[in-house]
Amino acid sequence: MSFSHVAIIGLGLQGGSIGLAVQCFLPHVRTTGYDADPATRVRARERGLVHEVCDTSQDAVRQCDLVIFCVPPGAMGDAAREAAPALPKDALVSDVGSCKQSIAKALGEALPGYTVILAHPVAGTEHSGPDAGFASLFRNRWCIVTPPEATNLLKLTELVAFWEALGANVEIMDAVHHDLVLAVTSHLPHLIAYTIVGTASDLEDVTESEVIKYSAGGFRDFTRIAASDPIMWRDVFLANRDAVLTMLQRFTEDLTALQRAIRVGDEQTLFDHFTRTRAIRRSIIEEGQDDGRPDFGRSDHEA
Amino acid sequence: MSFSHVAIIGLGLQGGSIGLAVQCFLPHVRTTGYDADPATRVRARERGLVHEVCDTSQDAVRQCDLVIFCVPPGAMGDAAREAAPALPKDALVSDVGSCKQSIAKALGEALPGYTVILAHPVAGTEHSGPDAGFASLFRNRWCIVTPPEATNLLKLTELVAFWEALGANVEIMDAVHHDLVLAVTSHLPHLIAYTIVGTASDLEDVTESEVIKYSAGGFRDFTRIAASDPIMWRDVFLANRDAVLTMLQRFTEDLTALQRAIRVGDEQTLFDHFTRTRAIRRSIIEEGQDDGRPDFGRSDHEA
Repeated sequence: MSFSHVAIIGLGLQGGSIGLAVQCFLPHVRTTGYDADPATRVRARERGLVHEVCDTSQDAVRQCDLVIFCVPPGAMGDAAREAAPALPKDALVSDVGSCKQSIAKALGEALPGYTVILAHPVAGTEHSGPDAGFASLFRNRWCIVTPPEATNLLKLTELVAFWEALGANVEIMDAVHHDLVLAVTSHLPHLIAYTIVGTASDLEDVTESEVIKYSAGGFRDFTRIAASDPIMWRDVFLANRDAVLTMLQRFTEDLTALQRAIRVGDEQTLFDHFTRTRAIRRSIIEEGQDDGRPDFGRSDHEA
Repeated sequence: MSFSHVAIIGLGLQGGSIGLAVQCFLPHVRTTGYDADPATRVRARERGLVHEVCDTSQDAVRQCDLVIFCVPPGAMGDAAREAAPALPKDALVSDVGSCKQSIAKALGEALPGYTVILAHPVAGTEHSGPDAGFASLFRNRWCIVTPPEATNLLKLTELVAFWEALGANVEIMDAVHHDLVLAVTSHLPHLIAYTIVGTASDLEDVTESEVIKYSAGGFRDFTRIAASDPIMWRDVFLANRDAVLTMLQRFTEDLTALQRAIRVGDEQTLFDHFTRTRAIRRSIIEEGQDDGRPDFGRSDHEA
């Protein structure tokens, strides 16, 4: 690990977790941070998310050798332009965003001449803001690094080592493929969850109070990810529009087929479909990407 | 509580949990049980899910004053006909199924002359079979009782007291409304989850291994409920077809509207939609129907 000073722009769930994780796992690395929201800066100081919370982004990046932009995809370009005048020319520029092609374009345009290597830790919770972060967020989670074709291999190696030090498993992928994979494992699920929670709250025949009371029948699982940060998700869907629309088309076709099976009473199609989806769940648990206990080990369960 | 002998037909997640809960919270009540699968009967004996696991359903119900059918909706009629010759004429007949109109019809036809009052504990996990049950499954969960219009009020009161003794909060509702409410809080979420897990595993450009690795981005939440018992869910969708198709239509309209907002870049519509879905999540946690800790308190999270 050869970074000695990491600057974090944006001190929400991701930025705050990186700050805490660096202090925990890389205690010799200095951390500075900035958030555009003054209240977030106050809270970040109270929680000690980084060694020093600065009042301008330029102060935060002034002597760093790695800057990580942890702001919503649509705010990346402006955040980078704001920090640019003070950013050392040899600092590595990175991020944590969920859509890589659009962010690569935004940061590349805002910071010409800099080495930009993006990263996406596939880790998070439904909570956001300066109180949401914790040091172990990245432990045993995958971090996808998407270097451009001709990149600085030394800095790439250092960035990989940085994420591994924070507990993540690192995978190298090109940005186009990343955006397709995440469209299905993250963006489409969030869109579906946001939709169904909206649908349920708009019904005339079923009250919102009933939806809440009987949510343990399955609905509550969707409300968790539908509670995620609305600004970030608005930006993600717009930034990764093409891949999201492609996946949505596939989903709608499959839903239409199951809808038809229900309408015509096609027992075999339903049974076959519902049987094969169990195997994926099993693999996710075996690979340590979820908790195998009933209901993820939610409270109130004992043997 | 005036039941002295409860017979449980079907010893999976629900039946097994009832058996364990009765032994735990109503220790003076005798429990007998039966399952059509011999291997389940063996395991039920080993775990002591009921006092006596019988080899025929007639033996199980012979002296009961409450029989609870805990079999998939499509198997209710046959299970009732099989037990009928030995079922005492004054025994109360109930169930735990997720769709009430069709089960009321099936049990009414199979057991003419009996008092039938159905119940639906809105509680469960993604696990099924004789190893899945636990005594606290119903604690702080809602149990919806759907008596017919002219019912035996004494037996209704006793059934309500029974479920309250097992830790549930009881709500009385008519069967038609129940089926509509559950279509949105349980059946539609399961259908959507089954669909998206199928969609993700059928892609050509994204491998199943990638879907599994990066599932922590949101996808894994859907795999939990898509791991539920396929026979039961096939039956639920067919038994509650009309309400499910109605809700699905509403969902599809809403999804199409969000799809259009993404396509045309309508930031405001997306932001507004994503903001209002947060409130429902908050209410579900406040009412104790879910765990407010990040990721439901899955392992690996600390402050």
